[in-house]
Order: sequence, then structure tokens, then C-alpha cells
Amino acid sequence: MTAPQTETLTLAEIETLAYDALIAAGTSPDSARPLAIATAATEAEGIASHGLAYIPVYCEHVTCGKVDGRAVPVLTRPRPGVICADAGTGFAHPAIAAGFAELMPLAREQGIAALAVRNSYNCGVLGFHTRQLALNGLLGMGFTNAPASIAPVGGRRPVVGTNPFSIAAPDGNGGVAVLIDQSASVIAKSEIMKHAREGLPIPEGWGLGPDGQPTTDPAIALKGSMAPSGGYKGVGVALLVEIMAAAMTGATLGVDASPFSGTAGGPPKTGQFFIAIDPEATSSSFFAERIQALVAEIHDQPGVRVPGDGRAAQRNRAMKRGVVVNAATLAKIRALL
Amino acid sequence: MTAPQTETLTLAEIETLAYDALIAAGTSPDSARPLAIATAATEAEGIASHGLAYIPVYCEHVTCGKVDGRAVPVLTRPRPGVICADAGTGFAHPAIAAGFAELMPLAREQGIAALAVRNSYNCGVLGFHTRQLALNGLLGMGFTNAPASIAPVGGRRPVVGTNPFSIAAPDGNGGVAVLIDQSASVIAKSEIMKHAREGLPIPEGWGLGPDGQPTTDPAIALKGSMAPSGGYKGVGVALLVEIMAAAMTGATLGVDASPFSGTAGGPPKTGQFFIAIDPEATSSSFFAERIQALVAEIHDQPGVRVPGDGRAAQRNRAMKRGVVVNAATLAKIRALL
Repeated sequence: MTAPQTETLTLAEIETLAYDALIAAGTSPDSARPLAIATAATEAEGIASHGLAYIPVYCEHVTCGKVDGRAVPVLTRPRPGVICADAGTGFAHPAIAAGFAELMPLAREQGIAALAVRNSYNCGVLGFHTRQLALNGLLGMGFTNAPASIAPVGGRRPVVGTNPFSIAAPDGNGGVAVLIDQSASVIAKSEIMKHAREGLPIPEGWGLGPDGQPTTDPAIALKGSMAPSGGYKGVGVALLVEIMAAAMTGATLGVDASPFSGTAGGPPKTGQFFIAIDPEATSSSFFAERIQALVAEIHDQPGVRVPGDGRAAQRNRAMKRGVVVNAATLAKIRALL
Repeated sequence: MTAPQTETLTLAEIETLAYDALIAAGTSPDSARPLAIATAATEAEGIASHGLAYIPVYCEHVTCGKVDGRAVPVLTRPRPGVICADAGTGFAHPAIAAGFAELMPLAREQGIAALAVRNSYNCGVLGFHTRQLALNGLLGMGFTNAPASIAPVGGRRPVVGTNPFSIAAPDGNGGVAVLIDQSASVIAKSEIMKHAREGLPIPEGWGLGPDGQPTTDPAIALKGSMAPSGGYKGVGVALLVEIMAAAMTGATLGVDASPFSGTAGGPPKTGQFFIAIDPEATSSSFFAERIQALVAEIHDQPGVRVPGDGRAAQRNRAMKRGVVVNAATLAKIRALL
């Protein structure tokens, strides 16, 4: 009898497994819980690359000191509309969760408020965080930077990461109308790494060599740079995110950040920036009508989806039927308990 | 002797010419001045398509009532961090200028503040506005929507405009370090219109026909939709902008807005959204060091430019030597005086 290659877990089982592994590695309960919740939510949305598969990496990073698993985020409020969170080289998730608890009431009171997170780490799926804001009736925008992997147009040396931005818009009925969460590169770096591991060529247009020329060899692309989506406009998006997530927070620039994978280089100390806005305040209460009309215009076209629809459908399925998880990933995590 | 096809004007002469033409069309001095200032600044930056060439269109729109040239923007402050400007179907420029006069001190006091403009119009070059925020030491973000011309991926009917976003970052020394101002489409719609007028085919990848298929015929593309930059990621950027500029302001969605050209359809009533943030507040004073390091990483690569460098170089040249203007454009404007 051969072992099954997948196993179906409930979302609660995924959260518990992630939590237990993080605790076993030395993470504090206050840090492990928000990370475990995000891991289950990410698996629910079908983004397996950023779900349980990351738990062994997180545990390794706690063990080697790349992340301080027991850090306690320190919040300050330098101005009426701004919250700063120093993640203390701990996980991003507890810093963001603690910041959001203050950000959400503040945004309703002020109309707009910001959370700047520094001394932070990879925040996983950015849209997980902005979605929390939208579920609370707020327009959420998020930015997170990463080690540099995209070169400016005409240049060869990467200066910005694949740097995603996200915007989550509430639907006026307690749900989320639109959830955009997209990186600045044509393809995720993890896809190029996967091709390299499997010895497969990459399609033209994904990456550039150290000479700045297009390549189909994943190993050469990994030594060079990631192709920005839409050429110079993708570089523009990556720069927007770098300015917000690093310069505006006082976090480490992508060019100076240690890699998110491997044990070398110490804490990356990257950053996140979130803006929460109360649509009622800025739109004179027209927001719900407008966002619903915009979504209807898109759904009105056969087979066309609004960004976020796919993740929402996956989430609904996962809540009913659980998530099919790779058995090798589970074995790796269970070995850590 | 044939008439010269170009004429060199100083920036002051351009501003005066634009102002006089707008006044002659019935625009109030308070509306004409900010528009004339922006026109000179736009010519200075070498963006002739949005400079004096637009003055006859603006004057026509005042005459036909598509714009109320005598509208007085009404500002309200529904929450401590939010300013709303009702442009009253007047020009966008006076509404934005009046809003910025309150937004800038508010952003310094609150750390972050927003300006939502509705019942507005084409705001010209978006980066002109965000640059004012950066020149005042603030991080400026801007969004403006336009009549729908981009279809969602898999769809055929346009739902969002070429919707640009802009971010302007101060350099910590009273100048501007980075100025990003980019639309969501591969190419400006005006370029496709120019090809149509000249009877030239457009390169593949610029536009799609009403059947959703790529076309090289500009007339067919104008009946269909504009190609989003980077495929679905360009649609994501256009949606981000539509949500901010229309849904968040209570302005008219691009699908319902009248065209920015021609005299039909009444006021477009589109919107703008601006966010101003004090980098000192969010970055614990690390901002200047970080933004300067980021810019240096890019300039350190031979021949590579930071977004905004090109416009800045043009501006410096124009301040010394004036701007070379198309004689036909000048003749058209002088005929309006």
C-alpha cells in the first residue's frame, strides 16, 4: 500500500497544525496565532504556495534567528492619523494585526488613517490583510516590499522587488466587492525557482539574464532579474510600492534586504504600509451604489470575473469541503512538531 | 515667405495666452488661472498633447456648457482627515487647487489626509497635481478616472478608462525625487486617434476590436477597447483607479461618463482622489535617507532614469529657452481671443 499523495484537512486543522509547528519552533503564542490564521485563510483561497508550504521556512527562520519569534510589536501614534508599528524583526502578521486593531477605529474617526510597519518580514499574501479592512467596511490599500529582483528599464541590476500592491473594496453589505492583489512582475519568482528545480525552460518574457537580455534559462534569470509586467509601467508599480513600503516606513530597501528564503543574512527588516479610508466620509454615501454598479458592469459580461472572485469561490468551497494538501508538505510540518 | 511652422514662447507667454483664451470663452478668473498655470507647466515638461493643444477644447466646452467655466468649488470636511471638493461641473483644476490649499496643512497636522473631488472634469496631467504635494514636502498620490475604454480580461465591453495613477515623492531637500504618472493602457488613446486621423495602422498590442480580438486598424480599435498594460494587471491598475477616483468620491463611473472630447453628453462629472502623507510622521525621519538611496541605486546604472527625470530635464530647458509650440495650435488659440 502506498501513502496517499494528498490529504484533505479542515481549515481549523490547518490553523492548528500551523500554530503547533510555529510554537514548537519557539514562536510565542501571540505571534503564532495571527500567522496560523493567515495560513489557513491562504490555503482556503487556493494559494498553496504561500500557505502551509511556508510553515517549515517560517520555523527555520525562527530557529536561525532570521525572525524573532517572540518579538512584541511596538505601536506609536506620531500624528492623529498615523500609527507606526515596529515589528522588532519579528513576524509581520502580529505587527499588522496589532496595528489594524487601532487602525480600523481610527480610520472611521479620522476618515483616513495609515499604518506604517518597519523592521518587518514577508507578510505572506498581502490581500489577506487588506481584506480584513474591507470586511470592516473600510477601503484598504496595502504595499509590501521584498528583496530586489527587478531591474529598472535599461538597467541590469535589480533595484526593486516583485513588490505587490493590494486594494480591497467593501461591498456596502458587510462583504468584499473587489480584491486586487498583484505583483509588479510578469510572474512570481517562485514559479521561476520551480522551473529551475524541475530542470524546465521558462517561457520568453518571464526573466532577464545578468546582461539584461531575455532568457529562457531559469538559472540565468535567477542570477539576473524578473521581467516587470508591462515593461516600464511594471517598474513604476514596483517603485510605487518600494516608496510606500520601505521609504515611507523607514524599513530596509529591497537592495539592502536579506533574502526571504534561506538562513543567511539576518532579518530582512522590510516593511508594509496600509491605508484605511472610510468610503462614507469621502463619497457622501455614494460609495456602495457606485462599487456595486462597477462590479455589475463586469459580471454582466459572460464569463468575466472581478479580481477576488476566484479566491472567494475557493474560500466558499474550502469552508464546506476542506482543503486538499500535499502530503509531502504535511509530512515536513509534522516532523517539526 | 512662408509662415514659420513653430514659434518659441516663454512659459509666462504660454500662461498668459491660455488665460486670455479661457477668459474670452467666458471662464471666471479664478478658474482660468490654475488651468493656465497647469498648461504652462505641462508645455514646460514637453507634454504638448495636454498643453496648449487642449485650450481650444476647454474653451469649446465652456461655450457648449460641458464645463461650467464660472463654477465655484465647494469644500467640506466631513471628518478630521478628509476634504471633499464638489467641482460643480466646473474645471478640475480650481477644485484641486482650492482643495490642496487645505489638504497640505492638514496632512502635516494629521500625518495623512485625503482630498476627494467629484462633479469634476479631465484634470490634465495628473502628475502636475501630485508634484505640488511633493514640492511641499509631502508624499502625494493621485487617481483620476475617464470615460470607459478598457474591457476586463475575457470581456469585450469597456468598463474602465485608461485611468492613470500618480505618486510624487519629495527628495527631502525641497525638490521631487520620483514622479510616477502612468496610465493603465499600453498606449494613450490620443495616439490611436492620431493614427486614425493620419490613416496609419497601429502596432499590434495597442487595441482590440469590438469582438475582443487584437487589431491593427485604429478605427476598429476606437470602436472596441484599449489594450491594458500587462494584460490583467493593467486592468487591475485601471480598477484601482476607478475605485479611488469614482466610487470613493461619489463621482460618475467611466461607463456612465460623457466623452472628454466633442460637445455631446453634458458634463462628464468624473472624479479625482488625492492622498497626502507626511513622510516625517510615518518613517520616523528615515524617509529622506531612504528615498535618496533608492534614487542613487537607479542613477548608478549608466543611462538609466528615474520616473520624472525626463520631465524635469525638459522643465529646466524650458525655463531657460522657452518652449517650441506648433504654429497651427497657436493660430487656433489666437483666433479665440
